[in-house]
Amino acid sequence: MPTIHEEGFFDYLKEIDCSDVEVYAIPEGSVVFPKVPLMRVEGPVAVVQLLETPFINLVNYASLVTTNAARHRFVAGKSKILLEFGLRRAQGPDGGISASKYTYIGGFDATSNVAAGKLFGIPLRGTHSHAFVSSYMSIDEILDKALKSHDGSRVCEDFVSLVQTWLSRIQLAGSLHGVFGETNQSELAAFTSYALAFPHNFLALVDTYDVMRSGLPNFCAVALALNSLGYKPSGIRLDSGDLAYQSNEARKFFRAIEKEFGIAGFGEMAITASNDLNEETIDALNKQGHEVDAYGIGTYLVTCYAQAALGCVFKLVEINNQPRIKLSEDIAKVSIPCKKRCFRLYGKEGYPLVDIISGESEPPPKAGERILCRHPFNESKRAYVVPQRVEELLKCYWPGNSCKPREELPSIKKIRTRCMQQLEQMRPDHMRRLNPTPYKVSVSGKLYNFIHFLWLNEAPVGELQ
Amino acid sequence: MPTIHEEGFFDYLKEIDCSDVEVYAIPEGSVVFPKVPLMRVEGPVAVVQLLETPFINLVNYASLVTTNAARHRFVAGKSKILLEFGLRRAQGPDGGISASKYTYIGGFDATSNVAAGKLFGIPLRGTHSHAFVSSYMSIDEILDKALKSHDGSRVCEDFVSLVQTWLSRIQLAGSLHGVFGETNQSELAAFTSYALAFPHNFLALVDTYDVMRSGLPNFCAVALALNSLGYKPSGIRLDSGDLAYQSNEARKFFRAIEKEFGIAGFGEMAITASNDLNEETIDALNKQGHEVDAYGIGTYLVTCYAQAALGCVFKLVEINNQPRIKLSEDIAKVSIPCKKRCFRLYGKEGYPLVDIISGESEPPPKAGERILCRHPFNESKRAYVVPQRVEELLKCYWPGNSCKPREELPSIKKIRTRCMQQLEQMRPDHMRRLNPTPYKVSVSGKLYNFIHFLWLNEAPVGELQ
Repeated sequence: MPTIHEEGFFDYLKEIDCSDVEVYAIPEGSVVFPKVPLMRVEGPVAVVQLLETPFINLVNYASLVTTNAARHRFVAGKSKILLEFGLRRAQGPDGGISASKYTYIGGFDATSNVAAGKLFGIPLRGTHSHAFVSSYMSIDEILDKALKSHDGSRVCEDFVSLVQTWLSRIQLAGSLHGVFGETNQSELAAFTSYALAFPHNFLALVDTYDVMRSGLPNFCAVALALNSLGYKPSGIRLDSGDLAYQSNEARKFFRAIEKEFGIAGFGEMAITASNDLNEETIDALNKQGHEVDAYGIGTYLVTCYAQAALGCVFKLVEINNQPRIKLSEDIAKVSIPCKKRCFRLYGKEGYPLVDIISGESEPPPKAGERILCRHPFNESKRAYVVPQRVEELLKCYWPGNSCKPREELPSIKKIRTRCMQQLEQMRPDHMRRLNPTPYKVSVSGKLYNFIHFLWLNEAPVGELQ
Repeated sequence: MPTIHEEGFFDYLKEIDCSDVEVYAIPEGSVVFPKVPLMRVEGPVAVVQLLETPFINLVNYASLVTTNAARHRFVAGKSKILLEFGLRRAQGPDGGISASKYTYIGGFDATSNVAAGKLFGIPLRGTHSHAFVSSYMSIDEILDKALKSHDGSRVCEDFVSLVQTWLSRIQLAGSLHGVFGETNQSELAAFTSYALAFPHNFLALVDTYDVMRSGLPNFCAVALALNSLGYKPSGIRLDSGDLAYQSNEARKFFRAIEKEFGIAGFGEMAITASNDLNEETIDALNKQGHEVDAYGIGTYLVTCYAQAALGCVFKLVEINNQPRIKLSEDIAKVSIPCKKRCFRLYGKEGYPLVDIISGESEPPPKAGERILCRHPFNESKRAYVVPQRVEELLKCYWPGNSCKPREELPSIKKIRTRCMQQLEQMRPDHMRRLNPTPYKVSVSGKLYNFIHFLWLNEAPVGELQ
């Protein structure tokens, strides 16, 4: 435990040569299960040992937050827009970048993290802040009031007055049940100003003062003014209170506006919800019934509240052609020895049936052939499977100096698509939230025998633990 | 909500000029309380708004993990060595760097993150891995067996034989109650090899096979061999099982060795414990009684399991000399308006008594003067305080183009010392784990009146929420 490092160690690190290293990995965006190695690293032991921490660091949080994103997607449903809003609560700037990248891969549609948008081409989405709303005092602060119509054919010289006219029409319309009197003028000024800057993308945060009495009518006044110039407003964001109730009320209000003023499609205005959302709150919203179209999710997503760390570890499984096994009283911690190959066996309906791990030199399983799949440690758990299709899981991403072909690194969009497709093709009972059927991971008969042969040989020590 | 960003926006970001911005902050490493602003940012609203997310991102996790480290230090006690081992479970590489930096500031002694050691000069500590132990097959693999004595006066040509001799002596010594027969030879080889490479820093992970029957006697054999060459071995690490029991047994064994072979100080060999440790498990170890000298803490420390995110937010408090207040039905969410100054008032015994927030133009509180401290929202909660000492909390770290003096940025060691001192000087009842007395944050009488004047004026909207 050196208390002071030697400077020469950093020089050594600089000179490290990975040309003798080979790295195999399951393609990014794949669905994976415990016991199947995510990566296999071969090479000089000192170098491989140095790669342990960087690889685990890069794999653990990435896998965890991708899984968390996929779980949010699963509960929200395919039709909803999911926005990652977690930068403020991530572990520093790069923690935030990782979160944006991997939640996108896990099924989110966009991020509010502009740096991640720039780096990876992830679609950017966001709204203005509460501070933007409260930065206005009154509508008189807006000096540049002109707005060109969507088709460029005319200029509305006083967009502010147009908004005010629409607000009066809303306030006077009997069918809208006039629940509101005066709306907040800071808010109206902020919305109007935002619409003048972003007429194509007008999305307003409507809960700074009072959603029903101020935010909604103010939004609708600006949206109707934009609409009369040919623009299509984007919608609202709700960020506090009872999101189910407010979204239902907002939907009713939008539909009443559509009817009152004959604006086709206004009723289907997009409603975004945010405010400490997570799997459980989205599930609760679904049970209550709501009209939310998009969710902005931050803290619970990026910090992975439900499980804040993934426990991937590095195990030495073979050295100088000698297999190594790590025994433990806790069977979940016993490692599967040897350099291995891993396969996913697919059934007739296209679902993955089981993963199987075999020794490197064994003939790989073939489609149409009967394959014995054994539980790695439990003698009585065994089954024969005839797969329709066999997929090898570990691919070579770093061949080092070997002549092996190297897998292309796919684009982030392709990784995301792979992730969606892999989740899609899982048998539904593996995916249900309550008591899912565990997916099985097995070993070949030969590997099973070898594990137990080693175990018996090592056992005189192992049993004393 | 622009779905596609404009390229020009990135050009705008590149050109941003912060010379009109002033940033005030409470010095890093300070103890802080809710409602007291951690930073005050002044400047053009568009620029300040852009700084919101980066500042919150930089402050939130840093403050959270520093606090978490301080809590671990508090429960472990001052005499223990605390090692941050969290890189594998942090949010990617920079999440890990932030964790190492701020846990050091919060009271940890060292990190296993070599990059953080290099960047910030944080002491590095670590041990070898289980994989290192299992990478050896037998003692015959060690080819270079020579070791120079500590004083350089002689060379032991066969350190391996010296270790084996000591192992036999341990095994034959009646006073050691010979609970073990053959120890694991892979482990013995690994320890011997490690000692040959790091004779000054021999610390062994003793739980790969069996702590009592293999790891401990193997460690002692190597340690005694080193000792006979004048080296002082560093100790052991326990990474599984019942840490209280094992540390007690290890201590007994070390003391028995000290007595048997007359090696002064061997009984006080350092014992490091790791394995999913957190505040609760350390507290439980303390209650059981243990002999652990140092803790290696990873997952629970860096992910802040107890509370995975800190909820710092940005509030607009003044614009164009107009105060802004954010009202809410939830009083904890009502913001304190205006540009403000913040002070900590200290009592006779040196403890901080209360923080007080006042308007920028108010005369600051003075030592020895009677000061009215009011709860910001509760009329009946008020007290007069005569401080012995007054400390202004917000200091200018970025004066922009103003001529204000700029605080020096202290070194990480100074920040850490500040943090330790600040925690040290808190009144103990604020610090106890169970039902601590809340520390009070107050406002001046003038600011209190102003908040409530604004509240009444804004209330017609606020009350409708």
